[in-house]
Amino acid sequence: MAELLKGAAVVAAINEKMMADIAALKVKGISPTLAILRVGERDDDISYERGAMKRCDTVGVAVKNVILPSDVKQDVLMQSIETLNNDASVHGVLIFRPLPKQIDEEAVRKALKPAKDIDGITDGSLAGVFTGSGEGFAPCTAQACMEILDYYKVDCKGKRATVIGRSLVVGKPAAIMLLGKHATVTVCHTRTVDMPSVARNAEILIVAAGKANAVTKEYLAPGQIVVDVGINMTDEGKLCGDVKFGDAEPIVGAITPVPGGVGTVTTSVLVSHVVEAAKKLL
Amino acid sequence: MAELLKGAAVVAAINEKMMADIAALKVKGISPTLAILRVGERDDDISYERGAMKRCDTVGVAVKNVILPSDVKQDVLMQSIETLNNDASVHGVLIFRPLPKQIDEEAVRKALKPAKDIDGITDGSLAGVFTGSGEGFAPCTAQACMEILDYYKVDCKGKRATVIGRSLVVGKPAAIMLLGKHATVTVCHTRTVDMPSVARNAEILIVAAGKANAVTKEYLAPGQIVVDVGINMTDEGKLCGDVKFGDAEPIVGAITPVPGGVGTVTTSVLVSHVVEAAKKLL
Repeated sequence: MAELLKGAAVVAAINEKMMADIAALKVKGISPTLAILRVGERDDDISYERGAMKRCDTVGVAVKNVILPSDVKQDVLMQSIETLNNDASVHGVLIFRPLPKQIDEEAVRKALKPAKDIDGITDGSLAGVFTGSGEGFAPCTAQACMEILDYYKVDCKGKRATVIGRSLVVGKPAAIMLLGKHATVTVCHTRTVDMPSVARNAEILIVAAGKANAVTKEYLAPGQIVVDVGINMTDEGKLCGDVKFGDAEPIVGAITPVPGGVGTVTTSVLVSHVVEAAKKLL
Repeated sequence: MAELLKGAAVVAAINEKMMADIAALKVKGISPTLAILRVGERDDDISYERGAMKRCDTVGVAVKNVILPSDVKQDVLMQSIETLNNDASVHGVLIFRPLPKQIDEEAVRKALKPAKDIDGITDGSLAGVFTGSGEGFAPCTAQACMEILDYYKVDCKGKRATVIGRSLVVGKPAAIMLLGKHATVTVCHTRTVDMPSVARNAEILIVAAGKANAVTKEYLAPGQIVVDVGINMTDEGKLCGDVKFGDAEPIVGAITPVPGGVGTVTTSVLVSHVVEAAKKLL
């Protein structure tokens, strides 16, 4: 029976710290504010937006919604970003991606002011993750994995940590952050030969495969700590992770549930970045 | 008997391509120029500088030397960088590091114009490596390892590639570049438990341990491709790598010699970056 690494406890700890910071900021007349820039009406975006707004409301972070039509022109979008860059009342900006086809996403990424890049999409933030300088903000999902490991006191030092997935939002930054925690880090992906044996060899396994039930029992070993980043919808309309939970639960040492694991912590990390961005003004 | 992956052939191939590019640039009135900014008189720096100047001379890249005293003040150094940033005749700038203690190296790194960052030290270049966008220039040593693998037609796809070392100039960028070549990548370092068995499991082994003879026979396996990044001096005053060559040679499939391996290719990569920087002006 694996220990369940529930996100709720991690969220509570992050919130507690955040609320103290927010109180201190408000005394100084600063009200931490997140701007959410959404293009179009994608269900995923709206669902994430709703979650983020609720979390902001709980802790006392203000939200400013900017919604543009899905056929928005590049210059209008760029102008919106410029306005948010220059709006002193906005401390962090979340831009939903992928953006529609007519938009040059690279230009959008570059247009955002690094100090407001609470989602870790600018060169400054990505270089900050890569160099470990602490500059900018790490991609929230990758950081959420680390927050969970930290909260549950998983010591990564010298451990074999394997990341499945090499995306810029999870796999690569998580790998670099695990290196910073002194783990011996392996990154697997779709081209990996015999992934089950590579995964089985890990003491800490971060799964960001982006595919329901991608990780089955032949990937798993007794005692492993498994962090499941996946959020997928089953045919029956239920949420599930990238790890086949029924396979993992009897084998591994600990695992994050889906829902109620990485996803919920990610939202808190996002909100905490807004507070951190506001604190830098002090 | 391991195949020797000599740098000379790689250098010749890089030079050939570079010289065609340089000829085309000169027709357009552009003479690719490298500025070398050296603080103080460290032997390592002077030796590398001499090598780079010779290589530039061979292919027809001009060199501008800027030498500052080891007790230079921050503002004088920053002014030198600003001058080089604004000098249209200079296409790439190499700044020797580490800089003396009185210098804020981070500020120096940030002061350099990304377009002239041929040594991959700015945020733009590091983010370019991390995202794979091709922006900026990769750290030359890490790229030299890739040039050797490419030249000798080592197919990394799906292979287990292990990097020993996690520095920003070699280990981390090499790991990310190997991921880009679709290898399954593991990064080891001083905190790694049982490094010999991790290393033995690799099909491609990049060694940037920074220590003479750090890799002995228990780290090696038949058929491995070994790239030895180390440049160390033995007690007898001879150059040697991080791999104990006598141990490796009878076991592995192929290995880069030291000297005559990665180091010589690194210099060519540096010079080729100057040419690439100049080409971007066309």
